[in-house]
Amino acid sequence: MAGPTAYFNPANAETLDASTRALVDRRARVLGPAYRLFYEHPVQFVRGRGTKLWDAEGHEYLDVYNNVPSVGHSHPRVVAAIAEQAATLNTHTRYLQEGILDYSEDLLGTLPADIGTIMYTCTGSEAGDLALRIAKHATGGTGVIVTSNAYHGVTTEIAAISPSLGGVDSVAPWVRLVPAPATGVDFAAGVRAAIADLEANGIRPAALIVDTIFASDGVYPEVAGFGEAVAAVRAAGGLFIADEVQPGFGRLGTGMWGFDRHGLVPDIVTVGKPMGNGHPIAAVMARPEFIEAFGRDVRYFNTFGGNPVSIAAARATLDVVRDERLIDNARDVGAHLMAGLTTIASTHEAVGEIRGAGLFIGVELVADRGAVEPSAAPNEKLALAVVNGLRERRVLLSASGPDNNVLKVRPPLPFSYADADRFLGELDATLTEATAASTTTAAN
Amino acid sequence: MAGPTAYFNPANAETLDASTRALVDRRARVLGPAYRLFYEHPVQFVRGRGTKLWDAEGHEYLDVYNNVPSVGHSHPRVVAAIAEQAATLNTHTRYLQEGILDYSEDLLGTLPADIGTIMYTCTGSEAGDLALRIAKHATGGTGVIVTSNAYHGVTTEIAAISPSLGGVDSVAPWVRLVPAPATGVDFAAGVRAAIADLEANGIRPAALIVDTIFASDGVYPEVAGFGEAVAAVRAAGGLFIADEVQPGFGRLGTGMWGFDRHGLVPDIVTVGKPMGNGHPIAAVMARPEFIEAFGRDVRYFNTFGGNPVSIAAARATLDVVRDERLIDNARDVGAHLMAGLTTIASTHEAVGEIRGAGLFIGVELVADRGAVEPSAAPNEKLALAVVNGLRERRVLLSASGPDNNVLKVRPPLPFSYADADRFLGELDATLTEATAASTTTAAN
Repeated sequence: MAGPTAYFNPANAETLDASTRALVDRRARVLGPAYRLFYEHPVQFVRGRGTKLWDAEGHEYLDVYNNVPSVGHSHPRVVAAIAEQAATLNTHTRYLQEGILDYSEDLLGTLPADIGTIMYTCTGSEAGDLALRIAKHATGGTGVIVTSNAYHGVTTEIAAISPSLGGVDSVAPWVRLVPAPATGVDFAAGVRAAIADLEANGIRPAALIVDTIFASDGVYPEVAGFGEAVAAVRAAGGLFIADEVQPGFGRLGTGMWGFDRHGLVPDIVTVGKPMGNGHPIAAVMARPEFIEAFGRDVRYFNTFGGNPVSIAAARATLDVVRDERLIDNARDVGAHLMAGLTTIASTHEAVGEIRGAGLFIGVELVADRGAVEPSAAPNEKLALAVVNGLRERRVLLSASGPDNNVLKVRPPLPFSYADADRFLGELDATLTEATAASTTTAAN
Repeated sequence: MAGPTAYFNPANAETLDASTRALVDRRARVLGPAYRLFYEHPVQFVRGRGTKLWDAEGHEYLDVYNNVPSVGHSHPRVVAAIAEQAATLNTHTRYLQEGILDYSEDLLGTLPADIGTIMYTCTGSEAGDLALRIAKHATGGTGVIVTSNAYHGVTTEIAAISPSLGGVDSVAPWVRLVPAPATGVDFAAGVRAAIADLEANGIRPAALIVDTIFASDGVYPEVAGFGEAVAAVRAAGGLFIADEVQPGFGRLGTGMWGFDRHGLVPDIVTVGKPMGNGHPIAAVMARPEFIEAFGRDVRYFNTFGGNPVSIAAARATLDVVRDERLIDNARDVGAHLMAGLTTIASTHEAVGEIRGAGLFIGVELVADRGAVEPSAAPNEKLALAVVNGLRERRVLLSASGPDNNVLKVRPPLPFSYADADRFLGELDATLTEATAASTTTAAN
């Protein structure tokens, strides 16, 4: 089983203080082993606000990781919207509601005009699952093309197109993997080869689906041949599905959507995580003809999907993104972070490529940049040490990529310059410490 | 495509008043045809409380249909719990949280001791999808047995075991259908035949999954041969999954769970709709060994699943079920309803079998009970007229079953004796009207 970095290892339970250990033991018994915890020393939070979380002892943590509370933990406008709507009415979409129409029209207005229809779900997994159903229905195809370390969700169907899950969740026979768009990779060539392989096996392509920031592949903001790849899939009868669950809602600092940065218009778009700032709401948006055909032929009703409270949460979240100019903030503070990370790289040989857009930045850690460039060996061990070291300094971070060596800088969007400087200082110190520790270890 | 009763037909848009029509048109454009509306005259609610909903003109409706707001629309304790937790902290399960453990232990305590572990999702569909993944992983089998008009959800995998969806969503080749436990049906015989057919086709059974009140099949509280059916599946290497999304959390008036009424202990239990009184939370509970094995081999993380706000909603909902003695209320008011419905049947020849437990009652409408008993022809047309007639009288109801002729009486659990009497009176009047109308039509 592929293991992302920095999970707590239950075998180390005896290293924990008594009360943490008691919680960890209860958790293992009640929730089972799927419920993995972050960090060598798991952390328990009791309060959150903006870009900060607090533990039971009142210690403040800087959140450089969580993209779900996108407009900030417990944003008062989102909280008030949820509370007010829950106290008033929460039903389902088989009664008329005006709020869902107002919000839908507003949200669709942020996408290219071709994408005119929306269907609501509760999670990104459900959105991906529905998007694939729509694409297969529209095309008559079954083949799906994804990147080699893609993650799109956890339903049976979507786990089968998520090679990053690894292990027994190996991808389905109708899935083809293409290399992520790393430096020097021609994305279109990979996609054309995948199409040819599908067709050689008698499988008609239904869709190319990509996370437009390629988060689980290691964060790739630039994609050579993206437009040609999309054109090739369409020429083969398939659709282009943009998975905007991670990049969407302004995180990349250049507009609302990741696909916008590439000048592309998808056939289907999925959104999730940040949509309701933590409230379970997600959606599929598509060219009307696809949703029309699907809705005519297939019965689909999502009990909680698009209910008034979910819509109120999404409405307030979108309002805050605009009113607090969070896209501009993502652009500006993201640029400041990139500059600071580049400065850090100049004094830390283990820092490799730094890639990102807005407030989604990947920082590669490598064995020894100077010695082995350009194909520096991934340094998962150091990434693990840095993520755990930062946690001890009360800064929350994680790592991603097929080798778990890419630090994932992905804070709530109201991340300030002061937050950025605090993070950069702690990262610099942690890298110094972790590098010294590994040198000492090596010398012993 | 199988069509449940009483949906609005968009072809009749011109019969609507101008403002309703404007909403219906916007809705068709923005949400597409999957978003079907209830009733000939769709209704727009602006407020809910307890067993009542109000439209924009201030008219009060009695809710005899909605099982999701199980402890009553906008219950103040649930609303307060959501508001308070949302204002404090809403993260995910990779940090330690005590609330999720307290709630999980409490909830698991209401199930047989063998079922000791829980995993959280956001919807019943996700829960069913995860339950099947666990069952297939545990057994090595792929075959699934469901009832002939079963509905278990809308992910790709779960739609494939939901024959009630009909049309292009026909069941997968690894699915076998068995007759619902109507009077005279030996449920075990059907399941044994399904097992034999799977095995004859080289498909190893993974699970028998049933909604323990058989809601979409037409509501069947008594099941001849249920225990033998479960034993047969286990003997063939499969598991018994109880889908408690509809019957669970006390609706049947005889304890928390539908399977309890049959003296059975499932291997896996799925819960959803009423769990958080409308907040998107659902779960899979299972014998620990199955979740242990799955969690060891398969990566599964549900971003919103079991987050602190969802848990707070579920916590408050369960507290209200107990503190307001809603299971007793379901039993007592349910019995009162059954008696009242029986009285109504004595003066309406079109009322056939009345089946139910607690506040889940199915009322068959038939062509002419006197003439053709015991196999009275289902009367979908009358059911449609009754559901729409009740809506005009501001009483919300629906119909189910393979022939859409079973009135589904399934109100929020705080349904009072006064609510019951109001419903019974309106149903009696509506039946009289609808029968007279159909007689007049027939005479013309």
